[in-house]
Amino acid sequence: MKTDIQIAQEATLQPIKEVAATIGIEEEDLELYGKYKAKISDELIARSHNNPDGKLILVTAINPTPAGEGKTTVTVGLGQAFAKLGKKAMIALREPSLGPCFGIKGGAAGGGYSQVVPMEDLNLHFTGDFHAITSANNLLAALLDNHIQQGNTLGIDPRQVVWKRCLDMNDRVLRNVVVGLGNKMDGMVREDHFVITVASEIMAILCLAEDMKDLKRRLGRIIVAYTFDGKPVTAEDLQAVGSMAALLKDALKPNLIQTLEHTPALVHGGPFANIAHGCNSVRATTTALKLADYVITEAGFGADLGAEKFFDIKCRKAGLHPDAVVLVATIRALKYNGGVLKDELSNENLEALKKGIVNLEKHIENLQKFGVPVVVTLNAFVSDTEAETAYVEQFCKEHDCEFALAKVWEKGGEGGIALANKILETLEKKESHFHTLYSDDLGLKEKIETVAKEIYGADGVTYSPAAERELKRITDLGMANFPVCMAKTQYSLSDDAKKLGRPTGFKINVREVYVSAGAGFVVAVNGSIMTLPGLPKKPAAYGIDVNDDGVITGLF
Amino acid sequence: MKTDIQIAQEATLQPIKEVAATIGIEEEDLELYGKYKAKISDELIARSHNNPDGKLILVTAINPTPAGEGKTTVTVGLGQAFAKLGKKAMIALREPSLGPCFGIKGGAAGGGYSQVVPMEDLNLHFTGDFHAITSANNLLAALLDNHIQQGNTLGIDPRQVVWKRCLDMNDRVLRNVVVGLGNKMDGMVREDHFVITVASEIMAILCLAEDMKDLKRRLGRIIVAYTFDGKPVTAEDLQAVGSMAALLKDALKPNLIQTLEHTPALVHGGPFANIAHGCNSVRATTTALKLADYVITEAGFGADLGAEKFFDIKCRKAGLHPDAVVLVATIRALKYNGGVLKDELSNENLEALKKGIVNLEKHIENLQKFGVPVVVTLNAFVSDTEAETAYVEQFCKEHDCEFALAKVWEKGGEGGIALANKILETLEKKESHFHTLYSDDLGLKEKIETVAKEIYGADGVTYSPAAERELKRITDLGMANFPVCMAKTQYSLSDDAKKLGRPTGFKINVREVYVSAGAGFVVAVNGSIMTLPGLPKKPAAYGIDVNDDGVITGLF
Repeated sequence: MKTDIQIAQEATLQPIKEVAATIGIEEEDLELYGKYKAKISDELIARSHNNPDGKLILVTAINPTPAGEGKTTVTVGLGQAFAKLGKKAMIALREPSLGPCFGIKGGAAGGGYSQVVPMEDLNLHFTGDFHAITSANNLLAALLDNHIQQGNTLGIDPRQVVWKRCLDMNDRVLRNVVVGLGNKMDGMVREDHFVITVASEIMAILCLAEDMKDLKRRLGRIIVAYTFDGKPVTAEDLQAVGSMAALLKDALKPNLIQTLEHTPALVHGGPFANIAHGCNSVRATTTALKLADYVITEAGFGADLGAEKFFDIKCRKAGLHPDAVVLVATIRALKYNGGVLKDELSNENLEALKKGIVNLEKHIENLQKFGVPVVVTLNAFVSDTEAETAYVEQFCKEHDCEFALAKVWEKGGEGGIALANKILETLEKKESHFHTLYSDDLGLKEKIETVAKEIYGADGVTYSPAAERELKRITDLGMANFPVCMAKTQYSLSDDAKKLGRPTGFKINVREVYVSAGAGFVVAVNGSIMTLPGLPKKPAAYGIDVNDDGVITGLF
Repeated sequence: MKTDIQIAQEATLQPIKEVAATIGIEEEDLELYGKYKAKISDELIARSHNNPDGKLILVTAINPTPAGEGKTTVTVGLGQAFAKLGKKAMIALREPSLGPCFGIKGGAAGGGYSQVVPMEDLNLHFTGDFHAITSANNLLAALLDNHIQQGNTLGIDPRQVVWKRCLDMNDRVLRNVVVGLGNKMDGMVREDHFVITVASEIMAILCLAEDMKDLKRRLGRIIVAYTFDGKPVTAEDLQAVGSMAALLKDALKPNLIQTLEHTPALVHGGPFANIAHGCNSVRATTTALKLADYVITEAGFGADLGAEKFFDIKCRKAGLHPDAVVLVATIRALKYNGGVLKDELSNENLEALKKGIVNLEKHIENLQKFGVPVVVTLNAFVSDTEAETAYVEQFCKEHDCEFALAKVWEKGGEGGIALANKILETLEKKESHFHTLYSDDLGLKEKIETVAKEIYGADGVTYSPAAERELKRITDLGMANFPVCMAKTQYSLSDDAKKLGRPTGFKINVREVYVSAGAGFVVAVNGSIMTLPGLPKKPAAYGIDVNDDGVITGLF
């Protein structure tokens, strides 16, 4: 069987200007990055502002398991399927993070015959957006420490610096560091931390900004530290906004690439689905809606994290109105949720499937709370049996949601036609009555508790003393109207990664709270959350190579 | 008077494919990065391998002063002048470092009407080469610390890790840090250091590599640490080569941009002129020589550092044979060397000029030691008087070197025609008998002493005990055949920045020695050398902005 990178490298790509032409983008609105990547111009975005919107379809999934779900694969395959049906469709995806490519995770371009290409570029530097974010993040940090070094007229308390440096690299030793050692000219000593670039607030800001003006406004509001008397210090106070914006000028423009079947894909931004909102940029999604009749997008991790934030943060902020949601599951993952070990997932096991399907059930119920029609799809594996598939289909019928099988990994767009037709039928038949889960004017604790109870199924919420203090401070700062961005494990509906299926009788434990004032949300951290991954004992990097002719191998 | 960025932004650029066509590069050999930047293909480089070489002209300067010399401006203006004379000319320059743009230095694209454009792109992310180097550098660091974390089977001594992390940012607090704090999963605690990206050995390697094969060979030889029993540990030992090379795949391709007058310029690589060799990439220079009849290139800082390394490292390694060297001075800088204060440089002062011209004299003598014909040029300022200019011209005649005035800042290529004609005349009249200063088989100490005495005019060299030990270790490792890369202040021929003019009666004090085994040279650090700059009290970042339409201001 061919690997994803082999399939991608064997593909014949169309010049991106030809792909662009299929959705009416002219060459003068493209900034080419090689032959197969382009940024789209601000002029095109402005010009298409008054076009009618296409239909917005979100692809989300059950809780991730080691068995694999294939959310990106389904998203890409579905875009290809719509195109095969003669529809004007676009895909809107996140850019993958560079760091994890060298660790465990590998890339994030879809799989099999449903990939976006060129996959090596996408998984490595792509058009440099993440490097620009890294630079802007670290310029702000350098200006902050330089301010302290040069007299500290703002009175920044070095113990209350909340801005962290970042790198797009899995590098555990940078999680907790001491900087400024040496002598007087080498800065003030203080404790510091690095996060991975996708966890930088600047990533979240870039993905929520409407345009350059909005970007600068948001950058200026970032809280980087507190003073000795407890007042917030912002990026604006540090005079950092203009230079950060200059660094982000090109990164703000969405990137156009193609699928293996030449369906256009806007791939732009990639905030952590954990401490940030986990969706591609608002600019990419809104622009795609102006250019295409059907836009298929995805959100990070399972529906409890990704879809909830897509609805409650991205759609709320950008005024988006999703028309349908596709919930991806696999027979294997459902059996895993039912207690089957990873090695035994290929055996038919209806009992385990029945036991594990409660995870799917809860996500269906959750998505229905947002008023958007739900279509469940199974990303097919060869080991799935007819009885297993039939069981899931019947289950969906009983839960008032549509069902279709997706064979996009194996067959590309052709394998997604059943699903695409089901979606088209749903769009026609069922109107979306989308609404957010809670309103802006609810208190922060009420918002947290609404998500915890309604979405996670928790009995209640506990708060650490530090979280209580910070919630009060944020409320006192007048920012209680922000939505909450829940950070918790992606592997469980609860905040305990080991609780699979549909856990009950648990509380959500809010350990830490902080405000991302530029992005415009309050992060509530539940349990332990990693903001800078490490490398495993045998990193994927060991297997990556490039030959004398520049052909890369070992990326996956 | 217009600022450099105003002049650059008002210029009408030609599409880079049209610029490329003027030197016979076809569109299929370009990878466009927007309309005005492109990388040239490996195929073009391979195909042009058997073309005859053009003439290679190095532009260097006297020791830098706060008065300014304008070496890049002269290089760019000269390229434009050759083009005006109907010659097929190309420029080969270094890419500027991002970090200093936000500090004191500003950009590095030339000045006035002799600039390469687009200057904002060049000074910010350009085509991402430096970000790729940062990533590769930090991937190697992460793999190293991960190796220690995961059992340390190679027996790396954490006290003898010599590989440093890097960022392209002026950030003093990262010079000396402690990493790995926290708990067991957060790595081993050790002291660490960040350098600026241009000081990374990977930058030097990229600039010396012939092709991908050579790049990988060099990356593999990097010494990252020593074991508890004193053996070197390389990047190859850490299995880091393939993944680093994958990150550098595109960065290895030279970038093509244009001057304000559309002369083609290859701008590629930018190693520190201090602890590295300070020249643009070998690939860019050799390719330019195959494509054009005249290639004008430059080397960092004054001739004592830049030209010496250009000859003894770059030309030695790449088998280049320079045909002429242009030595840039200004009346102002010569008077500054003669003791005039910065505010009084605009007044005629022949006495100070006579006193300060000894700096020029020493550089002329030095360059002549390499057997290459020398042309001195004065980068003209409005404050220069006829008597002052005449004095310098007469001085050059007496020292067996050519002279011409350059008015390229004010007049672009037109202002460089006198200089270009003088060079053409020199190329015809005087043959280059280029040779390096010393041979490979000299001992390391002899090499250091040859440079110190012959070039700097020192009486001798002293070594710290640590330097002595390291010289022995490097010799024992069988690397004494490498050339030496001297790191010292750029402001003086000595290693004391305050000694202007032509100092005598001093010794060079070698404080530290280490081997850059991948680049293939031994660094001798004399005096204190900064490998990560800091920001000043009022960083240039405060003045940089971008408006709602994406127009950047305040870069200089």
